[in-house]
Amino acid sequence: MSYETKAYATKVAKGPLEPFTVTRRAVAPDDVKIDIKFAGICHSDIHQARGEWGGEQFPMVPGHEIGGVVVEVGSSVTKFKVGDHVGVGCMVDSCRECSNCQIGDENYCFTAPVFTYNGKYSYKHCAEYNEEGGATTYGGYSQSIVVTERFVAKIPSNLDLAAATPLLCAGITVYSPMKHFGLKAGQKFGVVGLGGLGHMATKFGVAMGAETTVISRGTAKKSDAIDTLKAHHYIDSTDEDQMKGAAFSFDILISTISAGFDINQFVGLLRQNGTLILVGAPPEALPLATFPMLFGRKRIVGSIIGGMKETEEMLEFCSEHNIVCQIEKIGASDINTAYDRVMKSDVKYRFVIDCSTI
Amino acid sequence: MSYETKAYATKVAKGPLEPFTVTRRAVAPDDVKIDIKFAGICHSDIHQARGEWGGEQFPMVPGHEIGGVVVEVGSSVTKFKVGDHVGVGCMVDSCRECSNCQIGDENYCFTAPVFTYNGKYSYKHCAEYNEEGGATTYGGYSQSIVVTERFVAKIPSNLDLAAATPLLCAGITVYSPMKHFGLKAGQKFGVVGLGGLGHMATKFGVAMGAETTVISRGTAKKSDAIDTLKAHHYIDSTDEDQMKGAAFSFDILISTISAGFDINQFVGLLRQNGTLILVGAPPEALPLATFPMLFGRKRIVGSIIGGMKETEEMLEFCSEHNIVCQIEKIGASDINTAYDRVMKSDVKYRFVIDCSTI
Repeated sequence: MSYETKAYATKVAKGPLEPFTVTRRAVAPDDVKIDIKFAGICHSDIHQARGEWGGEQFPMVPGHEIGGVVVEVGSSVTKFKVGDHVGVGCMVDSCRECSNCQIGDENYCFTAPVFTYNGKYSYKHCAEYNEEGGATTYGGYSQSIVVTERFVAKIPSNLDLAAATPLLCAGITVYSPMKHFGLKAGQKFGVVGLGGLGHMATKFGVAMGAETTVISRGTAKKSDAIDTLKAHHYIDSTDEDQMKGAAFSFDILISTISAGFDINQFVGLLRQNGTLILVGAPPEALPLATFPMLFGRKRIVGSIIGGMKETEEMLEFCSEHNIVCQIEKIGASDINTAYDRVMKSDVKYRFVIDCSTI
Repeated sequence: MSYETKAYATKVAKGPLEPFTVTRRAVAPDDVKIDIKFAGICHSDIHQARGEWGGEQFPMVPGHEIGGVVVEVGSSVTKFKVGDHVGVGCMVDSCRECSNCQIGDENYCFTAPVFTYNGKYSYKHCAEYNEEGGATTYGGYSQSIVVTERFVAKIPSNLDLAAATPLLCAGITVYSPMKHFGLKAGQKFGVVGLGGLGHMATKFGVAMGAETTVISRGTAKKSDAIDTLKAHHYIDSTDEDQMKGAAFSFDILISTISAGFDINQFVGLLRQNGTLILVGAPPEALPLATFPMLFGRKRIVGSIIGGMKETEEMLEFCSEHNIVCQIEKIGASDINTAYDRVMKSDVKYRFVIDCSTI
């Protein structure tokens, strides 16, 4: 039986997040029903809730960092049992057939994954697919959700559930390219921008054995980077001498900056064969100087979230290394204030909604 | 004994190329003395002869596509004997000690290679190094040159020497990244821009078994691309429908364009995980949209010339597949006219100077 559950939604672009009721589908044979305990607030929730990317569907229930407990499983579910701690990230389905889906890179599904909110159930195997193009997806700012088994990940029991919740987006978004583009122990790794994604990249870099540097504007975040996150070095990107001193030195840089920035400044920090990974997506085009790219055989690559196989691998890695996010827990009525604080980078480093307050 | 040889030089930026005499060093134990038979004209010769890159040294004898015959070898030379057909490309030395030099990527020498002309002999093992910073290098628009064995490559005897000469720059510049970034048989490969570099990339792509498409403005080069160079497809980049039809389809693209262009147009042609190789270096920065990079885990990479190991491998590949450049042979007195014609893309596809006319 389909059922109703409490949620927070915005009815129009830039409207406030406020109480809302969503209908969730009945549990199909391959479905997992989850009591949502926590939902992280990702910067992209704000972009979409405010209608900044175009094509948004309202009312919108944001939330693609979902942590909860399994309360029911469909008859064919094998990976989960009632009581398991589980997470859901940015996707709740994909075509399952293309070469990327087959290798577990559902995030690069050649048609497109079904996003956890502000999406449509687009595939015939989606329990909520219909010929009109499928039902709208509603995300994690909610008390319950039903998700097909393949897009649910087990959260290891040694990790605090609230603090593990943002791993489902902030964590995997940086872990995936760090692994895919081959970060190795002993390499020089730089994290550009210290926010939700940046603090996870720093923790992962250190845990992977890379010599990890946080690169951020000013010095306000230096002690946090070094003392709390255990980065080996800190560079103030507004200090020309520090930037010059680091020229041609990094094997891999990951930029988590989502506003416009001087990309050439960071290409200049790469050593030969170095890779600049972009996971932040500034809305404006970035003027790229090509000469330095040629002379150093440098690479600029993009990456978005990660596949389910990598998500499971990341959660295992976090379990082994006891890595979670640094969070600030809030009640549902604080979401609007939290959005404003995220825009001012006034959070260390992720807000997590206690969904019992919804 | 050092000796004099005839050459063509420009005395000042934008001056005419005219007869000049250069002094070549005595043959050291690891040196090879080469009678230069042919010298290719590369677009970068023109940039430098016209002082467009900054820091140029005059008088300048351009030429880094050198084809000739060995006439003398030093006492410790093992790779060459008198009478061999040999080539010299863009470098005549490097530090030999850094990790890149050690693996044969001298083109990415961490200090810097010694360029064949408009450079300085910078290393103590250079026969012409001196404490004042080394003698200036003079290139291939000349009748003779002495080069250390390591930077000389054997040109296989089944290749026409004149037509093989531009392989030393135009050939290796595209071959190196095509191999390094993993072009495989059956993949979809696109060549953006059909000039000296583009026509070589097309020949290599076809010979490597890739489904090869030439992408160029207009239709003037279509028949040449398909009929002469044996490309499988041709796309007119000014035709929106053709470009849309090819969206998300290429595994690897190589851009040989050296003027400003819309890089996002070509990122859009890449399939997921696709790679856009830049070997042309427009002087202006190219505005890069990051969203498409992220959603497709796409890569933009730079590459410049190639190392000696790859140069030898390429020449073997050319020998096996009977690949040479398409050239127009000229006398030395035609160099200035040829420069103007290169600027108008009025050459199929490389001018080669008959050095007996110098």
